This record gives sequence, C-alpha cells and structure tokens, in this order.
Amino acid sequence: MINITFPDGNVRQYESGVSSMDVAKSISEGLAKKILVAELNGEVVDLSRPITTDSTIKLITWEDAVGKNTFWHSSAHLMAEAVESVFPGVKFWVGPALDNGFYYDMDLGDRQMTEEDLALLENKMAELAKLNNSYIREEISKKDAVSYFFEKNDEYKLDLLQNLADGGITFYKQGNFTDLCRGPHIPHTGHIKAIKLTNIAGAYWKGDEKNKQLTRVYGVTFPNAKLLEEHLLMLEEAKKRDHRKLGKELSIYTMNDDIGPGLILWMPNGTIIIEELEKLAKETEEAAGYKRVVTPHIAKENLYITSGHLPYYADSMYPPMELDGTKYYLKAMNCPHHHKIFDAEPHSYKDMPLRLAEYGTCYRYEQSGELFGLMRVRCLHMNDAHIYCSKEQFAEEFKAVNAMYLKYFKIFGIEKYVMRLSLHDPEKLGQKYVNEPELWLETEDLVRKVLIETGVPFVEVKGEGAFYGPKIDVQIWSAIGREFTLATNQVDFAQPRSFGLSFTNQHNEQEIPLIIHRAPLGTHERFIGFLLEHFAGKLPMWLAPVQAKILPISDKFMDYCVDIKQKMKARGIRVEIDDRSEKIGKKIRDTELLKVPYMLVVGEKEMAEHGVSLRMQGKGDQGLIQVDSLISGMVDLIQNRR
Amino acid sequence: MINITFPDGNVRQYESGVSSMDVAKSISEGLAKKILVAELNGEVVDLSRPITTDSTIKLITWEDAVGKNTFWHSSAHLMAEAVESVFPGVKFWVGPALDNGFYYDMDLGDRQMTEEDLALLENKMAELAKLNNSYIREEISKKDAVSYFFEKNDEYKLDLLQNLADGGITFYKQGNFTDLCRGPHIPHTGHIKAIKLTNIAGAYWKGDEKNKQLTRVYGVTFPNAKLLEEHLLMLEEAKKRDHRKLGKELSIYTMNDDIGPGLILWMPNGTIIIEELEKLAKETEEAAGYKRVVTPHIAKENLYITSGHLPYYADSMYPPMELDGTKYYLKAMNCPHHHKIFDAEPHSYKDMPLRLAEYGTCYRYEQSGELFGLMRVRCLHMNDAHIYCSKEQFAEEFKAVNAMYLKYFKIFGIEKYVMRLSLHDPEKLGQKYVNEPELWLETEDLVRKVLIETGVPFVEVKGEGAFYGPKIDVQIWSAIGREFTLATNQVDFAQPRSFGLSFTNQHNEQEIPLIIHRAPLGTHERFIGFLLEHFAGKLPMWLAPVQAKILPISDKFMDYCVDIKQKMKARGIRVEIDDRSEKIGKKIRDTELLKVPYMLVVGEKEMAEHGVSLRMQGKGDQGLIQVDSLISGMVDLIQNRR
Repeated sequence: MINITFPDGNVRQYESGVSSMDVAKSISEGLAKKILVAELNGEVVDLSRPITTDSTIKLITWEDAVGKNTFWHSSAHLMAEAVESVFPGVKFWVGPALDNGFYYDMDLGDRQMTEEDLALLENKMAELAKLNNSYIREEISKKDAVSYFFEKNDEYKLDLLQNLADGGITFYKQGNFTDLCRGPHIPHTGHIKAIKLTNIAGAYWKGDEKNKQLTRVYGVTFPNAKLLEEHLLMLEEAKKRDHRKLGKELSIYTMNDDIGPGLILWMPNGTIIIEELEKLAKETEEAAGYKRVVTPHIAKENLYITSGHLPYYADSMYPPMELDGTKYYLKAMNCPHHHKIFDAEPHSYKDMPLRLAEYGTCYRYEQSGELFGLMRVRCLHMNDAHIYCSKEQFAEEFKAVNAMYLKYFKIFGIEKYVMRLSLHDPEKLGQKYVNEPELWLETEDLVRKVLIETGVPFVEVKGEGAFYGPKIDVQIWSAIGREFTLATNQVDFAQPRSFGLSFTNQHNEQEIPLIIHRAPLGTHERFIGFLLEHFAGKLPMWLAPVQAKILPISDKFMDYCVDIKQKMKARGIRVEIDDRSEKIGKKIRDTELLKVPYMLVVGEKEMAEHGVSLRMQGKGDQGLIQVDSLISGMVDLIQNRR
Repeated sequence: MINITFPDGNVRQYESGVSSMDVAKSISEGLAKKILVAELNGEVVDLSRPITTDSTIKLITWEDAVGKNTFWHSSAHLMAEAVESVFPGVKFWVGPALDNGFYYDMDLGDRQMTEEDLALLENKMAELAKLNNSYIREEISKKDAVSYFFEKNDEYKLDLLQNLADGGITFYKQGNFTDLCRGPHIPHTGHIKAIKLTNIAGAYWKGDEKNKQLTRVYGVTFPNAKLLEEHLLMLEEAKKRDHRKLGKELSIYTMNDDIGPGLILWMPNGTIIIEELEKLAKETEEAAGYKRVVTPHIAKENLYITSGHLPYYADSMYPPMELDGTKYYLKAMNCPHHHKIFDAEPHSYKDMPLRLAEYGTCYRYEQSGELFGLMRVRCLHMNDAHIYCSKEQFAEEFKAVNAMYLKYFKIFGIEKYVMRLSLHDPEKLGQKYVNEPELWLETEDLVRKVLIETGVPFVEVKGEGAFYGPKIDVQIWSAIGREFTLATNQVDFAQPRSFGLSFTNQHNEQEIPLIIHRAPLGTHERFIGFLLEHFAGKLPMWLAPVQAKILPISDKFMDYCVDIKQKMKARGIRVEIDDRSEKIGKKIRDTELLKVPYMLVVGEKEMAEHGVSLRMQGKGDQGLIQVDSLISGMVDLIQNRR
C-alpha cells in the first residue's frame, strides 16, 4: 500500500500501481469525468500513469490554468489528425498551447490552406472528437523513433529528434495520428466539445526568415459550446475595445519610428490620465505613510552587479553606454537607486518601516516581435515603492500593501482577481535565483501565511519568482472577462544583504531589513491599456481627459457658453466648447465618439433658464439642469472618483 | 572726418585717428575717467587704438561684464608683475579672467608660495597700481618675440608662440613687466584700487597630469574698497549658504559613486520641493493654455540627426547604446520628442498656438571636472515647453513667456535680473549654427523688438545662441548678490523645417510654424540650488519640506499634540512631532537647525487654552495662538505661496 496526500493535507492509502484516474474515481464519478490531468509530486502527468510510491497528488480540471493548457495541447494533436486526413502527406513542426488556445505549424507542400478549409477541418475535428479516442503514451527508443519518421520522410520531426537523448523519448497516439511528444495529454478526445479554428498565418521554420515558410493554424477549443460562445463574444467585444484602436481615436498616445519601437509618446489626453493616476497614487501613499523620492534613469555597471540585475536579469536590460571608461546602464528597476537613498543616512528602528515611493521610469529590452501597443513596451512608468522593514513588521506591511490593491480594485470596478504566488525553482538556484535555499523557503512561507490569513484568493506557481525573492503577481479580469497580469508585490531578502543595508534595532544592534517591492497600479502603460478596454474608452468622470463638452445650438449662445466654461474651469473641471458651425446633431455624434462623459447642449430655453440640457455618455438626454447644481454634482463625482 | 555711431543711434564726426579715449573725453571728463575699454565695430579694443574709418562705438565701464573681464585680465598682469618682483626668475603660463576675478599659472622652480606670501603680494600690487603705469600694446614679429623669451629661458611662452602666426603677435607692458598677450587691457594700473588674492592651488601644465604641476594663484580686484568689502561679505555669506552644505544638512539630495557623478538622488525632503515647484508650474501653465505630454528619455540616432543635436550638439550628449543594429541616445533636450507629438495629428490654425509642456528629464555630458553640486549636473529635470505658433502670433507668445518669468520672480522674491539676448556668430554658420543667415537676422530682430517693447532690461551677446535660433538666457541675482544663469527662452526656425512640421492656415495653405523653447524655472537641479542659497535654506512656508514641528514639553502632552497634528494634516500641512525625550531647549535648537518655519511648543498652559506657543524660524517666540487660527493662517500662507 502507498500513501497519497491531497492538497488539503488529507492522506489516503491505495495499492501500488493505482492511477490518478483510479484515485479520482475512488472519490467520485463526477470528479473522474471532469479531471483532465494530474500533478504528482509536483510533475504534471497523464491520468493513466501508475503511482508506485508515496506521493502528493493534485487532480486538475478545466478550471485550472494547467488543465486548460493540457486541453489545448491535446486539441492541437486533434487538429493535426484532422489536417492529415484532409491534406494527406502534410508534415508537422511544433504545436504548442497558448494562453488562449493553440496552434500547429505545418508544411503543406505546394498546397494552400484557405478560410473554407478551416470550416471543413472544424467539422472533421468534431467528428474525430466524438470517437472518444484515448491519447496513448508510448515510450520508444531513439532508433525506432528515427526509423518511424525516416520512413514518413518527415525532416521536421527528424530535426527535433536530433536534440533528444535516448531513453526519454515518447510518442502519443490518438485514432490514426501519431506524434513525437513529451505530453502530458487529456485522457481522450471526447472532452473536446466545442471547436473554433481562428486564423491561418505564415511562420518561418525556427523563426528564421532564411528558412522555408510554414503554415500556422490557430484554434481554440472548449469542453462545452457555451464557453466557446462566451469566448467568441469576448473576442468580438475585445476587438471593439482594443486599446490600440481607442488609443488612436481618443488621442491617448502615439509611437514613432524615429523614436523607436515600444517607446510611448503620451499625448495631452493620455498625460491627463497619467496625472490623475499619479494623483491617486500619491494621495493613497501619503495617507499610508510613504515618502517620495526622485532618482536618475541610469547608473554605473557596478550598481547592477551589486543588485544582481546584471548577473540575473541582463537579457531584459538595454545595452550599456561607455563613458569615461565606465559602463552606464538604463535602469530596468528602481530598487537599487532607492537602496542608495536608504543607505545615504543612518537609520534607527524609529525610522522603520521606511517606505520610499517613486513613479519611476524604467527601460526593459523586450524582443521587437513581442512588443504590443501599451501592453508590452520598452519604457515603463512604474507605480513603484520599496518598503524597508524588520522581519517582525513584515506581515503587517505586506497586508497593508494587499489592502491597497483591494482599495484600488474597488475604485476601478475590478471584481475578479487572483494573486499568483510565484516561488523559486530549487533546480535553478544560482542561475535564475539567488543561491540562498533557506532564505527562499523562509520568505516563501512568510508570504504564504499572510495570504492565507487575509483570505485573498491565490494560487502558487513554482519557478516564477523574482531573482531576489518570492513575488505575488496580481491577475485581474477586465469587464469583458479578459485576463491581465497587472501588478506585483515582492519580498526581497537578497538585495539588503548585497547592498549592506542595515538599521539600529531596539537592542542597539545593526539589523538587516527585509524589503517589499510593490507596484499596485503596475505601469501606466499596461494599466491605461487595461482601463481603455475595461471601460471601452468611456473612462469614469475623474479620469476622462475632457469631462464635459458644451454644445451651443448656434453662435448666438456663445457668450453664455463661455461663461459656463469659465465657471466650470474655476472648479477644476476639464471642459471644452464645440464652437464649430455644425448642426447640433453632428456635434452630439462627434462628441459621443470622443467618449466625453457629459454633453451640455445650450439653446434659447437653456439660456433663459440659466441651465443646460445634459446628455450623458451612453445614456442620452437627461433633461434641463441648473448650471450650479450640474457643477456641484460633477465636482462631487470627480473628488470622490465615482 | 569720420562718422562715429553710438549705441543710441546718435552719430558724431571726429578726425581720423581719434582714439576711443578721445571720444569719451569729448563727451565728458567723468566718462573718460570711468571707461576701461571700448567696443569698436563689434571688437573689444584698448582705448588708445586709433580709429580711422566710420565706426560704431560702445564705451565700456566696470558696470559692463566685458569691462569687469578686462579689468581682471589686466589685474592678472599686475599680479604677475608683483610676483616677478618677489620671486625673480618665475616663469608664467596663462592668466585669464574668470567670472569673478582672475588667476595666473606660474612655475616657481623649487620655491613654494605660502598664504603669507599672498599678503605680501597684495601689498606689492597696491604699490605698483598706484604708479598709474599704462598698459602699452606693442606689435612684434614672431622672430623678435621668440628671441625675447628664448633669452628669458621661458619655455612656456615659447610653447604658446609655436601656435601663433607671424603678423598678429602682440606684447603688453606695464611698469617692469612684459607679457605675450592678445589684449585688450584697461588704460592704466591706477584703476585697480582694491585687491584680494584668494587662493593658491596646484594645476598641471595644460591640464595633463603627466606634466609638471604649476602654481595657480587666484585673486579678485575692484575699482574701490567698498566693492571689495561687499564681495568678501558675499563670499562669506555664500559659504554659509552653500547649497551642497545645506543640501546635506537638510537631507535634500545625495549622490553616490555607484550611480555616477552628476546624477542626483533626490531624498524625500528634496522631492517635496520638486513636487511643489511642479505644482506651481502646472497651475501656471494650465492657466496659460499649455497642454502636458510625457515622452521617453531615449530615441534613435536618426531623430537627433534630423533635429540637429548630433550634428551640432554631440559633445554634450551621452554616448549611444547599440540595440538591434540601431544606435539609441539619451535625450539632451525634449524638443524633438515634442515635435513628434505635434506631428502625430494634423493641425489647423484653430489649434495654434499649440503649447506642449513637460517637466522632462534630460541627460547631458558635462566634463567630470566641471560638475558642481546641483549647479552642474548630468541629469536635468527641466521646466520645459514648446510653443508652436505662426509668425503673427510670435510676439504675443514671446511676451507671455516673459510675463511668466516676471510672475515667478515675484513669487520667489527675485529682485535683480537681466535678460541676455544671445545671437549667432556669422563666422560659425554651418558649424555651431544652422546655416540660414537670413532667418537668423529675421528672428533675432523679432526677439529684439519684443524685448524693447516690453521694456525688460537686456544685453546682447554675439555667438551664444542655440544652434537652431537666438535665445534669451535669464540671469538672476540671489539675495546675497550672486549671479545665476537660470532659465532660457529660445526661438527656433530650424527644427520646424527639418521635421517638416506644418499647420493649415486660414488660406487653407500648409504653413511652417515657429517654435519657442522655454524653461522659466530652468531645471530643478539649478533652481533648487539657487533657492537654497537665496533663502539660506529657510524656504518659504509653501516650499518647506516640514512646515511645522510640534514640540511637547513632556510626554504627557502627546495625545494633545497628536490631535493637533491630525488636524493640521487634514488641511494638507506637512507637520511632525518631536517625540524625543529631550529638554524643550534642545528640541528648539535642533528644529532651528532644520530650518522648519514654525515651531509649536506645547505645555500645560497651551493645552489648557487649546493653543500652542508659536516660534517662527529666525523670529523667535510669537506667544500663544489658538490652533484653529494658526491652521487657517498657515493654509493662507501656503495657498498663496507667501
């Protein structure tokens, strides 16, 4: 008998050789129907894999990110089977899962795939899925694997085999399709109930434009039709809400070839949003006892060697500038600069926790192919701060940071979120992670405890920590259900040591502080990109670049309009007059397109009654309102950020 | 007879061969006694130089910067004469005038100069000055010059002679001293009435540390004793007000070897000052119709080729970073980035003038030997804006900018200022200046007219314009009379052309705008450095990092103090409590040193009467005051920046 430990700590005994599927069945048939794959002792494996030693188990369903990933990888195999039946002789390169679906790269020879073929393939996939074919794992010697693909005349899989060692090679088969694949896979094709092939694109073999261009087919699948329908609706809505489209229409930002890729030029409307966000952050941080600092964007190589950025993070940094025989780098993070400010004066326990905040601008090298609108950029304005505290103060500080997140979520109407606790990978200590195994476990445990205590939803992910300590990535969902990785909250035990930071504690000893790195509003770039989608460009009053537009029906009301405008400006309202010689209908339509929250229509009646006719964005005519009560209502909305 | 034209446009006739001194005497004996040198047709020359053609003349006195410069250069010769009489056999290298005085580098052989020698030399100089020896100019052939210094065994002057062409070489003699010198000089030593030798330093010959170290003697001289006295007082006061000393004492900023020279780390107190200045600028610019933008700190090489920065300004730029085969540079100015924002959307005359503002951070390469506290740095936070306007709008916009300067001067109590109109040098067109001779003259004239119309004090300086157009440098004097070059206001006719900028004018034609570059508050670095000296660290209430400190006489008043603190914080006042267990006398002394404007002493009586005893910085005890009226008084001071 072997002991199997479940995530909640429960232990059950099973006979050796039991499979994860058997374990699931022993709990409930309902669970057995839902599970897709299992995590055994930290490794994700097929449900059929026999368990022969004491193990920890996690049974994974569609609800889990790993479940979706496996589902889509298996769907890529199903698509390949369908393609092979429609395009016999096709050769396949690789077919990975993506964040939202999958693709497979293939060589169709002289044939072309068309949009019509996609519909045909979808039907074929549905037909094959209904056969409930199992995904069967087969261990195979390198010799036999090579001989199999040599006979198939498949130079692509032979190329892949060159880099694989004998002994660990596996094939996966379902129905008539066999693939060289590491797995794991879902138990059978019957889980795949809703299928959409979304796109055909060209992709150079191995990403090298000197190589042959392969055909890449994208798709997405679901365990039921309703989920697919919701997904397609979300995609359609996301297209309308695309921040790149809205960013241009609303004059939020621009880019320019002469400046460089990934470098955002914030236009006046975008700058207003930036300044409102910074105002919110400064007020919130001031109330929470933060102090602000300003630091340069460059520093000498030596700083980033000490901080660990050059040893662990150089790939994400801009190349150096050589000046007076010294290398200078653009900062990829603000932390080392803040540490130097901490270290500029001696500190006692009375100064702790010391919280240094800066909306700092960092530069990171992202591959040009990965740049995307405001979402992936090279210049980031970060809502950064570093909290220097004692170990005893850590839990309270970390909780306060989490509370700040929740406060912001409320302001922005973010209802769905999850915290992703990213841990180190013990196998990569010294390469990707500072080599301090005990400090890793200790701080990971500190953070885990705080998360459990505060009861926020969280998941744990191995191998995604920062190089200097565990971190929490905050994932949020926009109004249309798209997921964004937004903000970060990290613990750092490594940099305070490498920078020799210390404070005098109550016992008059020098003590090394812990550091919390946090950025609840993430970067302006990503957060404003998120907000544009979340609000479909219809920003709440306090964030809107133009809060009200006055639309005179004719020029003879202009003096009255100017009078209203001045009254509103005196109260800090961002207001404009549409003084074009256009019909009122056109003025209203154009202003709607600019997503201005309030339109104030002014004609004979409005002027006579010292009012305006208020039209609210998306809600239409609200009737006549007195100017004074309009203004006090707006000021209230703005000041309370409602 | 020849015509001589005076600066006011008056023309008088004189016999050919008349000297500037003769001209001065023809006007008044008083003037003749005061003038030191003359500007003839734009060239500064000795007063004795005969005038043989129609000429323009400017008679220059001590009041003029050129007058001071000549006075100090002549004083360097006088000092050399004194040194030669005390240290026979001394050899001289070069002895230029400085902004405030002069120095001479000399080789004393095996001898050392001491502080006592300086007093001796001062006396000797005074004695020689009283002889009223004339500075006599003598043209000399290269051969005779070489032979003179060869006989003197003077390798330094022989070295200088190597680089001089025959035909333009001159000696200057006064009393027993002869020097190789281009001149010009004041008429005689009798003008030099007050003398102070300030410092002895070592200086490598030609600035190369592989060469011999020479002795550099610094001095300063004046036409009367009162001026010297004032100058010495000012130096003493400036030492106390040194922004580097105050910057450390008040925790305003720090620097760090690992970050790099000239790169300021702004600590929390400095950051408060920065944010108050930015708030002032944003409010002022908002009211003046500016729009704000945010731009990255780097751009591709190509941008700075188009803008002219790489062709004309590369020496002041950081070296490039090579990324994906492209060179990226840190921006030395914000202008090209703003031009790209202007150019991102089409504009009509209705959008003009378009005023784009940004507190932009620029990076400039200053030689490490020239770096000085906050005054000369490599990272500059600039109160920048660019105004895009038509030629017709130029005068009004330029005047509005000047008015903004004057508004700021009033807020900061700056009483003495002058605008320095910096023009191009026709001989350096195409090297230092964009090669558009007519546009230079036209825009210089535009600016000159505006300055004359508005009646602000200004001087004209040839050869100090920006590479893209004429500029105004604003010079201001601190409370102790030290001069600072602060802000700038520039016209640009070149960049709108090279960037292909245009707007649609009223006639539906594409028109090229003019650009005004302006930065009334200069850079945070220099302006805060100035403010620290100007206010001797005692910043006005609205700028003070801590506006009030509550000093409880004992711990039993702490609750009451916390109550006051919360009331004050709720009104936005920056307030702290001195909760140390120290005697009240020590608390007051320590708070005085931190230059906190208001100290609020709290004891039995104060608590009983719902008040505090107010001590004002530098003014002592003001008696008991009710908390509510204290707060409303402070809020008034802060909001009105008084």
